[in-house]
Amino acid sequence: MTARHRVVIVGGGFGGLAAAKALRRAPVDVTVVDRQAHHLFQPLLYQVATGVLSQGNVAPPLRDILRHQQNVQVELAEVGSVDLERRTIACTVLDRTWEVGYDSLIVAAGSAQSYFGRDKFAVYAPGMKTIDDALEVRGRIFGAFELAELEEDVRRRAGWLTFVVIGAGPTGVEMAGQIAELSRHSLRSNFRKIDTATARIVLIDAAPRILTSFDEQLARRAATKLEQMGVEIRTGTRVTGMDDTSVELRSDWRVERLAARTKIWSAGVQASPLGSILAAQSGVEPTRSGQVPVNADCTLPGHPEVFVVGDLMAFDRLPGLAEVAMQSGRHASAEIRRRLEGGAQPRPFHYRDLGSLAAISRYYAIGERRGARVWGFAGWLFWLVVHVTFLTDFKNRVSALFYWTISFFGRSRPERTITAQQIFARRALSASGRGGERL
Amino acid sequence: MTARHRVVIVGGGFGGLAAAKALRRAPVDVTVVDRQAHHLFQPLLYQVATGVLSQGNVAPPLRDILRHQQNVQVELAEVGSVDLERRTIACTVLDRTWEVGYDSLIVAAGSAQSYFGRDKFAVYAPGMKTIDDALEVRGRIFGAFELAELEEDVRRRAGWLTFVVIGAGPTGVEMAGQIAELSRHSLRSNFRKIDTATARIVLIDAAPRILTSFDEQLARRAATKLEQMGVEIRTGTRVTGMDDTSVELRSDWRVERLAARTKIWSAGVQASPLGSILAAQSGVEPTRSGQVPVNADCTLPGHPEVFVVGDLMAFDRLPGLAEVAMQSGRHASAEIRRRLEGGAQPRPFHYRDLGSLAAISRYYAIGERRGARVWGFAGWLFWLVVHVTFLTDFKNRVSALFYWTISFFGRSRPERTITAQQIFARRALSASGRGGERL
Repeated sequence: MTARHRVVIVGGGFGGLAAAKALRRAPVDVTVVDRQAHHLFQPLLYQVATGVLSQGNVAPPLRDILRHQQNVQVELAEVGSVDLERRTIACTVLDRTWEVGYDSLIVAAGSAQSYFGRDKFAVYAPGMKTIDDALEVRGRIFGAFELAELEEDVRRRAGWLTFVVIGAGPTGVEMAGQIAELSRHSLRSNFRKIDTATARIVLIDAAPRILTSFDEQLARRAATKLEQMGVEIRTGTRVTGMDDTSVELRSDWRVERLAARTKIWSAGVQASPLGSILAAQSGVEPTRSGQVPVNADCTLPGHPEVFVVGDLMAFDRLPGLAEVAMQSGRHASAEIRRRLEGGAQPRPFHYRDLGSLAAISRYYAIGERRGARVWGFAGWLFWLVVHVTFLTDFKNRVSALFYWTISFFGRSRPERTITAQQIFARRALSASGRGGERL
Repeated sequence: MTARHRVVIVGGGFGGLAAAKALRRAPVDVTVVDRQAHHLFQPLLYQVATGVLSQGNVAPPLRDILRHQQNVQVELAEVGSVDLERRTIACTVLDRTWEVGYDSLIVAAGSAQSYFGRDKFAVYAPGMKTIDDALEVRGRIFGAFELAELEEDVRRRAGWLTFVVIGAGPTGVEMAGQIAELSRHSLRSNFRKIDTATARIVLIDAAPRILTSFDEQLARRAATKLEQMGVEIRTGTRVTGMDDTSVELRSDWRVERLAARTKIWSAGVQASPLGSILAAQSGVEPTRSGQVPVNADCTLPGHPEVFVVGDLMAFDRLPGLAEVAMQSGRHASAEIRRRLEGGAQPRPFHYRDLGSLAAISRYYAIGERRGARVWGFAGWLFWLVVHVTFLTDFKNRVSALFYWTISFFGRSRPERTITAQQIFARRALSASGRGGERL
């Protein structure tokens, strides 16, 4: 028995998971390596942060999703480097390090939050890229209302009731909309001393408008809806400073310091460090955000056995969408299958634009696809159908639907649990003036 | 308008919440103070730790439960002390401290895990008393299987696949049963290199048998069932040492060091420190585990305006059960109401024993009530009905039922999400040899 072709997939996000599934019937041994044990359905992460969904709803274990696919094994490890010459990747977990050899490699390592060089902001304004982030943000949002209720000083109370969302892409817009919903509706009956509806929600972007990836007219509708819900939109505005209790905003015509305890960062992404490692070894120039330029078939220049897909790939200015990752991941697997069947000529990757969606509030979303636009309740229904369809697993679909019923019809939030530790972590933050290190 | 009678309730657990609800129609102003923002349905906490339920299912926000009760306000704070002379309690949160005055005080501050003076064990063997505990234990259990899959050394792999549960009361028994279920069924299809069914689950208790609060014959049935499921029961055994990779067991006839990465502590409880503060000020002697002896009407001797209820109260050797806490909490509120209506004579508290239950596995539970015994599938149905009925909120009932359907019929675990930070926390633990401080 000859050894089977070994495919190693780095990353179990949308790109890596789609690639693994597409190799279901291929005569290969697949190893998926990820530093998280779960696949994350990132587009719904803001709902974990705002108490709509649980972690399990959006982050099922990778190995459970792939349990019936016998040619796949999942390994929990950080991939520190790739050796293109020896065709190995270096894996680390705890105090162990080992190498995994490959015949074909699919690098789907994705991207992390970028603070554009101001990494100190991370302490004050958590990002929205991981389950840890979402639980941290959940603790800060619901904790802020708790602490506002206890605060007698009017100005300090206002600081607890001010929420600043930095970055007005889909995640930022959805976060701002959810906080508005919480403060204007879900939480009002819960408090006695504060009126949660007086909370300020400020949505900030350096660009001249929100949702720059969307059609301008749709973005304007979204902005109007957000403003009706009580969200203040500050476009053309940069965040130039931040501490535990405030944020400094700068636009062309003024600088302002806003008292705001809760800051959430959704402004930028930085590709995985594996991008620069691959670029250096293959002699290509990574983009400013660390993405790797690839050939038309998603392979690394000079290395037809290495595919770079998803957020890590610089290809035709495609955006960092789940759909791009899934299609490029599937393309890589299709190429590997085809080669094993004797196909010689590489085939180019063609992205089929399925459109984009953003949920502004319950019953209101915007969406577009190839020039067609939808908004309002129709957009929301569309959003609902798409997200139920794409959620990773039947269990997750049913439970998300169940939770959405509670949240959207009942306006209640089934997953609001925060812990005393999260509140007391704030004490460390206040005391040290810079916050505790995240592990 | 004269000031209304002020009732302060310390603790929003079973006792405090029942007391608050029982004052619904009373002409009083109620303040519930807790250091957690949520009420915890502790009897199901082991299901959060083993991936069956989400935090939200068992820990709804206190203020949400009480939102319609307009005479109640909820404050998030640690209660550091009580001044019986001045009739105030001292509250702290972050850097703020304030006092709350009361006319009547109900102290329902409960208990925490006790390590019987060996507090270093807490680093290696988390308890099962809070949501933080449950998420920590969840991370350790599922993380251990992940790390076993990566381990090539047979002996070290066995260490990752050994789970030691210390304390064979209902929580310990339920934990051991769930880990057996996970390893023998739910997780088997998920792994490629290890057979999860080879995991050792060791249940330890210093007493001569498990479930000492139950009838001996029922406990024997439970032990037989656990052994059939693969749980090793070690009664008459004490834990005398512990580190990151092992645990030292001592019985009358031998000392043994067992390689075990995952240890879970459910062996003892220590009453809240408020117990000794109350005892010192009123001149009574607390019990060894810090409980406060009370009068027949649950009041503190010499202080008819102060009630001590639930786990903190030493009364007629009543056990630390949710039902005891709820009944004594309701009794305190009934006494306060009656006094306000002019009733002079204190009425004694009578505990009505509703029996006890423990779930051993899916479809198998034991229960007893006033000499009547039930076990097996009938016991499990009984367990199901009681837990659905007593879960705090309609939403929680429906979602728990939904998750139970997934877990018990499908044998799957909908809430298995752990985070990379939890795995990496293990690195800190291994590196320092003593583990990171919990916040």
